[in-house]
Amino acid sequence: MDKLELVKSMIKGYFDDLGNSVFNGFRDDFSFGKMLRSKLIFTIAPDSIYSVKLCAIIELIHFASLMHDDVIDDSTLRRGKISINAKYGNKNAIMLGDILYSKAFYEISTIDQNLSKIIADSVLKLSLGELEDVELSKSFNLDENKYLKMIEYKTAALIEASAECAGILKGDNSDKYKIYGNSLGIAFQIIDDILDISYDDNIIGKNSFNDLKEGKVTLPYMYLYKKMGLEDRKYLTSFFKKELSNADIVWIKKKMQEYNIIQEVKYVVDSYANKAISVLESEDYKLKLILKDMLDRKF
Amino acid sequence: MDKLELVKSMIKGYFDDLGNSVFNGFRDDFSFGKMLRSKLIFTIAPDSIYSVKLCAIIELIHFASLMHDDVIDDSTLRRGKISINAKYGNKNAIMLGDILYSKAFYEISTIDQNLSKIIADSVLKLSLGELEDVELSKSFNLDENKYLKMIEYKTAALIEASAECAGILKGDNSDKYKIYGNSLGIAFQIIDDILDISYDDNIIGKNSFNDLKEGKVTLPYMYLYKKMGLEDRKYLTSFFKKELSNADIVWIKKKMQEYNIIQEVKYVVDSYANKAISVLESEDYKLKLILKDMLDRKF
Repeated sequence: MDKLELVKSMIKGYFDDLGNSVFNGFRDDFSFGKMLRSKLIFTIAPDSIYSVKLCAIIELIHFASLMHDDVIDDSTLRRGKISINAKYGNKNAIMLGDILYSKAFYEISTIDQNLSKIIADSVLKLSLGELEDVELSKSFNLDENKYLKMIEYKTAALIEASAECAGILKGDNSDKYKIYGNSLGIAFQIIDDILDISYDDNIIGKNSFNDLKEGKVTLPYMYLYKKMGLEDRKYLTSFFKKELSNADIVWIKKKMQEYNIIQEVKYVVDSYANKAISVLESEDYKLKLILKDMLDRKF
Repeated sequence: MDKLELVKSMIKGYFDDLGNSVFNGFRDDFSFGKMLRSKLIFTIAPDSIYSVKLCAIIELIHFASLMHDDVIDDSTLRRGKISINAKYGNKNAIMLGDILYSKAFYEISTIDQNLSKIIADSVLKLSLGELEDVELSKSFNLDENKYLKMIEYKTAALIEASAECAGILKGDNSDKYKIYGNSLGIAFQIIDDILDISYDDNIIGKNSFNDLKEGKVTLPYMYLYKKMGLEDRKYLTSFFKKELSNADIVWIKKKMQEYNIIQEVKYVVDSYANKAISVLESEDYKLKLILKDMLDRKF
């Protein structure tokens, strides 16, 4: 997709606008990732003159939020590279995040007020989602609804906003893009959670079994806990926020298999995928493809 | 001014909207300060139905920026109270700052696109100003233009935006409010810099001679350095980022007096004050009063 290169150029142009020498070093550390949100926008609104700009703004926000998340989670790795906070320090990561956020808000406010409102609402949700994520990580959370609400805010909100804004750029204000984006986003995060416990360790830049160590009790752990007996529950919760040994990982994998947990969590993913599909029409086959690719992804 | 109470109520309503339990504790720690920006808005646009809302948004942004600044500067005191980062930890302060920023952007986007643009531009400037402040604090900066540009971004931008937006709410799009706000903001910061080296230590919640310790070479220090001989310069720069003893403070005060530095810096303040006054008209006497009060302030 050549348009993604245009998005990258526009983001680099934004860095030039900002003009601070700090950005010269940082520019090369900006890692674009999968650009799921941009692909979504181009699929929905391929012909809008504002599509590239909307993509650049959304990617900037996504990156700013990851930068602050990495400070908050003490992460040293992001997209297979050393994270900004690990390389430049927490303080620079906070400041750069603030700068990218406000640059994004400025740029969106030059397009359309309605888009500004949708984007700001999504950033508010993702900030609240991050706070809730930290809250939930303080104990072994077993409240599935709280967890789903948290990922809806932290992960789905910006994907939903991308789809909704693209619909508006297309001139189609129907709610279907919003609903599709919301369900896609939640499914995306649950797939991520499944991948954490099923990664092939040969995939570069990804570590498996990180979530529980970071206090993130994702659906697989929640479901496993609920199925197990008292002794096993005790054993599982003893891993909470701990460094796992190979033996621990083998035990968890075995238990997940025994209770068929991955399959059960995949049913949840399917329910969101079905909801996303249910609002689409026959001409939206490309959005179905994005969903399918996302469901089939291995990293 | 009773309207300021309305602003406080609106901000508390915003906290209710956000609805997270973390905010219950935090609400009581929200300290409103002097509300200079709100006073400015009410003076310019007393009759607009959006004035209270604009004030609440601006105060929210101001508070969010202070919260992130305090993390970046490792400050433990703010407005005479323990700072949010010191009380709740850096991570909570980062997250709360992000939440307040995005809440503010959301709320402004519900009023008017032009206001959104002005506000976002000012937040971009204040974020860039903070980055530049940290950059300049790495060495004993003697570049006056860089310093003035930095405070124009870090301090004046939001005051300027407050005045400009209030002008728009009033229905008067002339540039005079913007120019007035810009000059008022720069003068405000230089007064702050003067107060740091001339506070009466009996004023609660204020510490004097903090700037140099934090690496902030403000105009008084810059001017003093330029007037002194080689030996004294060496002595002065030896205090950079150091804890000052009483004897050191006495020496600095004596030298500042000897070279009449405060008076010289006040001339700079006056030049900005005169610029602010030059754009005002006779009916703007209340804006002149705000300027006068600001110039005369002792804290």
